Parts: sequence; C-alpha cells; structure tokens
Amino acid sequence: MSVFDRTIRLSLMTLLGVFSSFAFADSGGGQIVHDAEYYVLEAQNGERWNAEDEGLQQRLAELREKFKTPPNIVHIMWDDTAFGDIGIPAIQKVRGFETPSLNQMAREGIMFTRFYTEVGCTPSRAACMTGRHPVRNSMYNIGMLRESHGLRSTEVTIAEVLSDVGYSTAFHGKWHLGDIEESYANNQGFDEAFFTGYNQILSLWTRQGEQANATIGLYEDMLPSDPYKLDDTFVTKAWILALEGKKGEAPREWEDNSYETYMKMDAEAQKRTLEFIERNAKAGKPFYVANWPNMASFMPTLDKVSQGRSLLQDGLQGNVDPFVGRVMAKLKELGIAENTLLVCNADNGPMAHNPPPGCGFTETIFRGGKGDFLEGGVRVPAQAWWPGTIDKGQVVGDIIHEVDLFTTFASLAGALDDVPDDRVIDGVNQTSLLLNGDAHSRRDYVFIYAGPNLGATVKGNYKRHWISPDPIGEASGIPAGFYFLPSDTREKTPMLVNLIHLKSPFNRMRLRHDLWKKKYPDLPERHGIPWQGIQNASPEIQALAKPSVDVSKLPFDPLEYIEHLDELPFDPSLDFDLGE
Amino acid sequence: MSVFDRTIRLSLMTLLGVFSSFAFADSGGGQIVHDAEYYVLEAQNGERWNAEDEGLQQRLAELREKFKTPPNIVHIMWDDTAFGDIGIPAIQKVRGFETPSLNQMAREGIMFTRFYTEVGCTPSRAACMTGRHPVRNSMYNIGMLRESHGLRSTEVTIAEVLSDVGYSTAFHGKWHLGDIEESYANNQGFDEAFFTGYNQILSLWTRQGEQANATIGLYEDMLPSDPYKLDDTFVTKAWILALEGKKGEAPREWEDNSYETYMKMDAEAQKRTLEFIERNAKAGKPFYVANWPNMASFMPTLDKVSQGRSLLQDGLQGNVDPFVGRVMAKLKELGIAENTLLVCNADNGPMAHNPPPGCGFTETIFRGGKGDFLEGGVRVPAQAWWPGTIDKGQVVGDIIHEVDLFTTFASLAGALDDVPDDRVIDGVNQTSLLLNGDAHSRRDYVFIYAGPNLGATVKGNYKRHWISPDPIGEASGIPAGFYFLPSDTREKTPMLVNLIHLKSPFNRMRLRHDLWKKKYPDLPERHGIPWQGIQNASPEIQALAKPSVDVSKLPFDPLEYIEHLDELPFDPSLDFDLGE
Repeated sequence: MSVFDRTIRLSLMTLLGVFSSFAFADSGGGQIVHDAEYYVLEAQNGERWNAEDEGLQQRLAELREKFKTPPNIVHIMWDDTAFGDIGIPAIQKVRGFETPSLNQMAREGIMFTRFYTEVGCTPSRAACMTGRHPVRNSMYNIGMLRESHGLRSTEVTIAEVLSDVGYSTAFHGKWHLGDIEESYANNQGFDEAFFTGYNQILSLWTRQGEQANATIGLYEDMLPSDPYKLDDTFVTKAWILALEGKKGEAPREWEDNSYETYMKMDAEAQKRTLEFIERNAKAGKPFYVANWPNMASFMPTLDKVSQGRSLLQDGLQGNVDPFVGRVMAKLKELGIAENTLLVCNADNGPMAHNPPPGCGFTETIFRGGKGDFLEGGVRVPAQAWWPGTIDKGQVVGDIIHEVDLFTTFASLAGALDDVPDDRVIDGVNQTSLLLNGDAHSRRDYVFIYAGPNLGATVKGNYKRHWISPDPIGEASGIPAGFYFLPSDTREKTPMLVNLIHLKSPFNRMRLRHDLWKKKYPDLPERHGIPWQGIQNASPEIQALAKPSVDVSKLPFDPLEYIEHLDELPFDPSLDFDLGE
Repeated sequence: MSVFDRTIRLSLMTLLGVFSSFAFADSGGGQIVHDAEYYVLEAQNGERWNAEDEGLQQRLAELREKFKTPPNIVHIMWDDTAFGDIGIPAIQKVRGFETPSLNQMAREGIMFTRFYTEVGCTPSRAACMTGRHPVRNSMYNIGMLRESHGLRSTEVTIAEVLSDVGYSTAFHGKWHLGDIEESYANNQGFDEAFFTGYNQILSLWTRQGEQANATIGLYEDMLPSDPYKLDDTFVTKAWILALEGKKGEAPREWEDNSYETYMKMDAEAQKRTLEFIERNAKAGKPFYVANWPNMASFMPTLDKVSQGRSLLQDGLQGNVDPFVGRVMAKLKELGIAENTLLVCNADNGPMAHNPPPGCGFTETIFRGGKGDFLEGGVRVPAQAWWPGTIDKGQVVGDIIHEVDLFTTFASLAGALDDVPDDRVIDGVNQTSLLLNGDAHSRRDYVFIYAGPNLGATVKGNYKRHWISPDPIGEASGIPAGFYFLPSDTREKTPMLVNLIHLKSPFNRMRLRHDLWKKKYPDLPERHGIPWQGIQNASPEIQALAKPSVDVSKLPFDPLEYIEHLDELPFDPSLDFDLGE
C-alpha cells in the first residue's frame, strides 16, 4: 500500500467517523473495486449478505444441474419512457396506449419502482455495458452526427466478460456508443452485432426529414443554391446508419442511410435476436443478447396504432411490446424460459425538454426528463422475468441502478473473476434482489451525474441536489435542496429546516465518493476519425479520414480539432493516442 | 314556449349547425333538464342508450326481486388525493403508503381513470349533493371561519331525492357546505347527520394550533396583550366544530371545538355509519349514507403509520383505508354486499399549492392541484364496487363527473321523477357505465370552473384552456391553449397549429353552455348569520346573531355586510332574502 493509498484510506475512515478494521478491496487482488459508499453498507450488512449468498448459489446450482448451462440473459432496453408508463393499466388508459406483453411480464415477475439510469441515451448505454457511471470514462456525451468519439477499447463490456466464460453474445439495435472504430459493438466483445452509432435522429437525417423541415440544411442538393455560401466543409455529407459485423472482423455498412433503411432496422434486429436465441438454445450454449430497439421514427408515421397516436405510445404499443411478447413466447417454445433472465427497461426519462412536436413525451409521475438529475430523468420503468426463479407479481421498492445489471449478469454467469479489478465498478451484485425480492437490494444510494457534474445524490428516501435544477431553486436562495421523496415526488419543495440534519451525512458521502476518485481517476473522452475500418465503405466515408480541403493552403491541421473535443482539459500525460 | 325560449333555442340550433327535430326538455314536464351539450350527444346516441337501458332495467329488476329493496348506496369521499395514488401498488411504493382495502375494492370493481370533480372541497361537496356544478348556485366559495354562507334550502340534495322514495339517509363527517342554518345536513334531507360546517383547518383553530404557530392570533388569551389593539370584534371568537341532528329537529353542538374533539370525530363518524348500515339492513330498509371523513389533522401527529409519514399518506393508510375495509366486511357480513353500491373517491386534487409543511401533498401524474382547472385539480382516484353487478377488475377510460353520482344514485333508486325539473342538472345517468363497463359513459365533456369563471373545457381527449393557468402561457403569447391529453398529461405544451381546427367546435360548445344559462340563470351566494338554530348553543354562539358593538354608536348596520359577501353584483330583482 503506497503512502498515497494510505492517505486516502485514512481520510475516508475519518469521513466515515469509524476506525474499524474493514479494509477496502485492493486493486489487483482479483476483487471488484466498488465505489466507496458500497463498503459502508458492506461493513454493516456483509454477514447477512454472505449468508444469503450461500442460499442463492445453491438455487443457481440446482438450476444449472437441470439445464446444464448457466442462465441465458436477454436485455431489452428502449428509449425515453417515464416510470409509471409501463405495467400499470390505469396509467396506460390515461396515456392512450397498451403494452399487454410488458404488463404480463411485470405481473409474472418483478416490477421495479426505483430503477435508476443515467440521464441520457449514450451514458445509459455505456453504463449498462461497463457497469460504470459514464463520468468515469467520459461517455456522458450524447453522440450526434460526426461526433468523432466513442467507447474506448480499454473499457471492459459485459459482452467481453460473458464471452470469457463461454457465452454467445449478440447486439442488435440502437448502440449509440460512438462512431469511432474501437467503439463498434463487434469490437466491444459481441460475437455478432447489427447496430447504429447514433440515435433515432437518424430518421430525420434523411431526404424525407429535409423535405418536412424536420432537419434543416443537411441535403443541400434539395435546396436552392445559397448565393452566400463560402464553405463546403461545414455540413456533414457522409455517415453510416447501421453496421453489421462479427467479432474480429471489419463490419459492413447495412444498406444505406435512407429513411427506408431506418424504418426496416427494428424488424431486422428483432429477426436476428430471435434467430440468435433459437440457434444457441438448440446448440445448448449459454447466451447473452442485448436488443435495444430504435422503437420509433422521429418522423410521424401514417399509421397510428394507439389512442395516444404519438411517437412514444405507438412505438411502445406497436413495436417494443409485441417484440417482448415474441421473445417470451420463443423462450417458452424452446423450453429455456426457466433458464433465462429477461430484463426490460427504459434508458432514461421522457424527452420532456425540446421534444419533436406531438411526440407523446411528458412527465408521468416524477419531475424532469432526459438530461435531468431529477427523478424524472433517471427513474424508469423496469422489470425482470425469470419463470420459476423470480417470484410472480412482485412490486419492489428497492433502489437498483442499471450499472448493477453488469455485475449481476456477471455473477449469474459465474464470471465475476473476469470483471476488471483495476477500476471502479459502480454496479453491485443484485442477484439477491432478483431471487429474494423486496428489501434485498445491496445499495441504498445513487450518484446522479448530469454530464460531468454531480447533480444529485440519493440515499434511501432522501435526496440532495448539489446544483439547482431550475430558477425556482435559485430564486429561493436555496441552490442545493434536501428532499424527502415519498412526499415530494416532484422535488418541488426543498425542506431545509426539516432535513438539515442530513447536510453533514450527504457531505461525507460525496467526499468519500470524490476521494476514491483520487485513486481511480476519471478518464477523458476518447476521440478519433469517425466510421473507419468498414469493409464496404463508400468513397465519401473513406474521405472522412482525409482533410476536406487542400492542407497546403491551411496554416493548421484540419483534423487536429479531434483531440480537443473533450470538455475536460486535455492532459498529454495520459495514454491518449488518436488512433488512425 | 315564450319568445325568449324560442330565441335561445334557435340560437342553440344555429350553433349546433343542425336543424333536426330534437327538442330540449321543457322544464315542468317532469324531465331532467340537462346541460345543452348532453342533448348533442343524446341526438346522436339516444337510440343505443334506450336499448341499453332496457337491459339495465331488467338486471336491476332481477336484483330487486331477490333483495326486495332497491340497492343501498354508500358514498365515501375523502380529501385532496391525486389520481394514481389509490389502487396502484407501484405508485404507492413510490409514495410510501399502502391502501390494501381500497386496492382490493379497485380489483373487485371499477377503477375510473377519468373521474372529474370540482376544484375544491366546498364546490365538490355541493356538486355531489345537488348534481349541479356549483357555479349554478354559487357554492364555489371554500367556507372558512364565520363564512356566513352555505347551501341554500331551495337546492334539492340527493338525500331529499332518495328520502322521497323511502330511503333512510345519513351523513357523517366533513360536510363543509356552510355555517348557516338552512345549509345544515339535517336540514338538507338527511334523516340523521353528524357533520362539520368547515374543513380540516378546524384542527388548527385550536389552542394547540395557536401554540404551534400553525394558526396565528385566534386565541388572544394565550398571547401577551397587544398594546396597539383597538378593535375587539375583528377576530372570530365563537364557532361550531361539529353538529349532530335529525331531520326536522334543531341540531346540537357535539362536544366542543377543541383539538381533542376534532381528533375523535372520524372514529365517531365511522361508528355511526357502521351502526346505520346494520340498523337499516336488519330493518330491510334501503339506505343511502355519505361518510366523508376528515381523514387527517393539519397538526402533525406523533404516531406515523406509513413510510411516507405525512398527513396524506398516514390519513389514507391509517384512517380511510381501514374504514373502507370495515364497510366492505360489514356489507358482506350482513348479506347485502350484492345489493349495495359502494363509491369511493377523492373530492379534488392534492393541496399542492400552499400546503401545510411536510404534508405529503404533491402532484402525482397530472399537473395542478386543488383550486386548478388543470387535470391535477379535478381528476381524482375513484372506484365503484358492487359485487355481482359491477364486474371485477375493470380499468375504465370513460369520462365521468361527480355530479353524475346524483343522477345515477337517483336512477338506481327509481327516483328520477323526484329530481327537480326547473333547473339544470349537470349530472348524467351513468348506470350503464357501472353495469356495462368501459366505453359506456354518457358524457364526453366536462366544463371546469375555477370559482365563478370557466377555466377549461374537456371534450374527449381534447382540452381547451379559456384562461392561462400560469405565467408560461402568458409569456408564450398563447393565453388559451389547446391540448391533446394522452400525449400531454401535464398540459405543458399547447398545440396551437395541430389543434387549431378545434377552435370553432370549442367555441360552439361554450356558447351553447352559456346560452342555456339565459334560460336557467346561475344563482348568487346564499348568506346568513352563522350557527343559528342550535339547541345547546353557548352564549358566545348565540351572540353571533347580535351586533358585537353598540349599534347606536354606528352610522350603519354591522350585520349588513352579510348581504354583500357574494362576489357577483347583488341583483335586488332576484329572490334573495337574508333569512333570519
């Protein structure tokens, strides 16, 4: 243990107010490095947890005896849905749509009421893949056209962990984890992948989008020529909608980036997922498949299927829900439902701010939406289904975070030893919550980041805002409020007097979290030239790697900007090469 | 038909854009006078409704054959609860409380998802009693200490209607329909009554409230004497907490107006309701009982029963819900559950504005609360239970309004002929909705008044705000917005362009509603001296009828103010005597 380590540890112990003998896991010793807060809980609950774990291992061993493989895992994650919108028929009446299969799944398994995510698509997906809050690897940036960044190759994904213990792995759908080559799903541990680098706005980056004024100025050939135009490099002209590829091979562009291709993607992804399940089930091979649908187009479609008639309601009722039904039916048909964990959740709250018009996004119970550290941004519908192993009809009030899926999946697969031990893994093992139900979570806390900033901290029913979420807070002179969530679900009434006894506990909690980062520092963004290493790359895509103007006429390197994309100060001492 | 009538009728027909042969019901002909909008629906759906009604009458006749009486009716209405808070375990986990009996009631009957009320306690209670929007009789004023107004004697309550056909009737709990003698529950048709004239703030108008600074300056003897005080008449010194009385008799004050008495009231009301049910069941007499609990004290109590620990959650979990469970058990025990309709609902949305601190009131799904014409103000949890007659497990998406209870109860009792035909009855007969379920409502519209002003109109999934609910609306330059409710439950995004085709239909609807008032004008407030006609009135209460200062020293009558309390201009041509 270095002097530096000892200093941190002593500081942490002081902050805890305890000087007992529990030790933090030492990196390199093969044990998962949790966030500091976890150890505070483990010190108090570890004995009970160990006893529970013995029972859990016995149940899982019996299952493995019966099916001859560790459990299969299917993870379906869709976009931007408020907690309450799934699994509750009365709310669905209000919102004008139905999801009979998802509701059946909830009735037959666990409906979580405190499932937390990150605040947006890219960070949420990075969190599921790595078990880490995206602030740790700077994946909080929502990737858009020619973002030139993505998930770095040194991050270890759940696909890599499960591959290590013999799982077949597949990714189908909205990846949204970057447009640089190392971030491609087939380069991040998946045996097979069919994926987008960006999000649903791909449906507007089309000639139809330009025609409808839903996207402005991307297809200049559709517009009268602009007599004032001087710069032909400003607007992006080439990008990839979807790639398909296998582990270890260069991927291929799937069809083109037209609206028609976009609209075919989900059906294709669903077909591939069902085939993947069937193929592996018949081969007796354990599998992990993530199907993260696009769910809907940002261009309104002609056929409305729901009373709510909007993007969200139609997408849930007409697309996601029938697919979930088909997955459950397929698992039963193949006789592997009892050996398969199905987890379905939204990736963050509704796009309540700046949504496309008539989209159906609205706050349902909590205040805030995508992008907010308010509960509405990060508390989503989520459910787990595993007939025979997860008891039916459970409404679970424990806190669980999507990063926990990483650790829990690894645990179920017997792959905890393959989780890296040189970095903080925020995910905790929630196997006991799945198998034992209500009041068996191993976390009572959430750190909620808005981009690189810590926005709020949740501890049990209490929440502290570190920055003010809205002008009301600023005007009241209380920029950081304390909230009691059961009575104030909308975080509208900071209770300074009633809850001020929590000031110091919250401060200690934050300081422990920050101090731990001295040992395990956050990484800056990973940048590169987009859409490289593609087998059938068009000339336009290939041209992205080359300067778009005559370099000899410039006093600077036009690609140099890539290394300065990160909001954090660029630190040349870090291992931060720019790839090809 | 007078010239005036013909003019109105012609105007209405023109507004409708139809010149078909349907006629409005003529007052005096024994038929209920509905609001204009109803006739538009009846003209289009009347034949189907008539056919349905034949089936309904047959089913009710069979029930009457079996039980020998028309159905009993129990109505439990509590305060200030947001739609979503009752009957949905996942939301109750979020909000930190449980209502197992109310949830069981929902599972065994109908959970309404569009049950509308008036915006506040007094108007909501007046609406249930009279089947009329309170704007029609100026009962929109929330009665407070020495309000000197109340429900006028010429209004016909559901208790009077049901008494006419032989029902036993009882009222127990929070009446809040006035402090003038004619408004007392036992003077408004109830055989027996035990009731408050005001609301739960009675719990603060106590020495304990003064001590806690929850009420300021009501008990001057507890305070140091004020050297600047000149007026000894300004602060009210005498009022009644609860009265008990029988029809045709002067009521008695029940105990006193202390905090201890307040805290005993609900238990006493519940005991009386259960005894009333048992007594009438054993006598084979049909009955109607309204138990509208106080639910909670505005002074925090020492014992917390719910995780949410606040006024609302503790009141629902610890008080209202167990009582509903006891009522259902009692009805089953007496063998009359199959012949009894139980309706439970909140009286308006949560007290989200200016609530007592730490009260637990918050918006759950809809925006707005008590006092608002937003959905959050008027769309509440409500359920109906009638084993064997109402099918189990229904989640109903139809619009129903609390005024409909009046007409529906009258219909079930065979008392429609006793409903007055000289005024507008806003309630429609929802027997078909109760017995046939989803998509059988007889209304698709709601007029939502905020005090005397029409705030919004709902038609199906569409809503129009007539006045702007908040500064956002004003600032946007769109003071009157059009909303599509399934996609915008929080009424945050007026869709001017997408919904502007509804401008004229909404205008027509409002004009029909307003024109109909020319024939059936709204009445002004009814005023009088409070707390008269009480058997055991204390000298202080008796003194309320006398001027509190030496009249000979005043240049005016100090009681004259009473006749000017109404916000409407005083119209001497109206029949508006001041009582005693």
